[in-house]
Order: sequence, then structure tokens, then C-alpha cells
Amino acid sequence: MKQHATFYHAGCPVCIDAEQSLATSLDPARFEVEIVHLGQSPARLPEAEQAGVRSVPAIVLGGSVYHINHGADLSALK
Amino acid sequence: MKQHATFYHAGCPVCIDAEQSLATSLDPARFEVEIVHLGQSPARLPEAEQAGVRSVPAIVLGGSVYHINHGADLSALK
Repeated sequence: MKQHATFYHAGCPVCIDAEQSLATSLDPARFEVEIVHLGQSPARLPEAEQAGVRSVPAIVLGGSVYHINHGADLSALK
Repeated sequence: MKQHATFYHAGCPVCIDAEQSLATSLDPARFEVEIVHLGQSPARLPEAEQAGVRSVPAIVLGGSVYHINHGADLSALK
């Protein structure tokens, strides 16, 4: 069964770059990557916060959060 | 041809976690990932710095640096 990974971003240049370079580079045989644009889907903000996301872009994988560089703080998206 | 990706770390817990979760999760059909322990291979420090690595863990992919969370500043490894 594939592992679910969620990539949270907000459309910023740093986010788009991380999405294109890293989020889409995970092994498709092992991961199912969901891309969530928090600016367009603010209803997903609480879920991201609960997972430990503090800034975007970030990827949540196996219960852990990996903040990739720094585009925007989550608080700036509320 | 596979793209070369270099994952720099320093053996710290944050580094090991990022290595096991992200660096080893890249699509093996598209990427060849080299793992560099800068504590054990200090001769690679200048190359990492030149690539733009400021802290570890970080992955250099396609000429861009992606700092993943924060384990240690590069300056602490000198």
C-alpha cells in the first residue's frame, strides 16, 4: 500500500519550486502525494497546524513534518 | 540519465530522520542520491557552501538547495 504524503504550500515562488523539485520527485511506487494550496483551501489550515506545520512549503510524511526552506509562516495565511 | 542529488547531513537526529524519510524516498528511476556526512567528510564542506547550503540537513537538487527543518548550521561543523 502506498504511503500518503501531503505537501502544503501557498503558491509562493519558494513553494512552487519545492513542489516541482521535491514533492513531485518522491518515488511514485511508494508514495501518493497530495498537494494542498492553503491559500485556496483555507479549510485545510487546522489540519496542517495539527500536523505541526508552522510554515510553507512543508511536507507531512509518516506523521513527521519536513519544512522545506521558508516561503511563508502559517500565521500569515489566516 | 538519472539526476544527481546530494543530501548533506551531520549525523544529528534531525538529519537522520530527514535522510530516512525524504532523501531515500526520491524516485530511484529518476534520481541518484548521494549521502554526504559533513562531520565525517569535512573536505566536502567548501562544495556544500558553494552550492548554497547554510544548514543541515539539506538536499541539493538541480542546482537548488532545499534546507529541510534545521539540525545544525554549517558554521558549527567547521
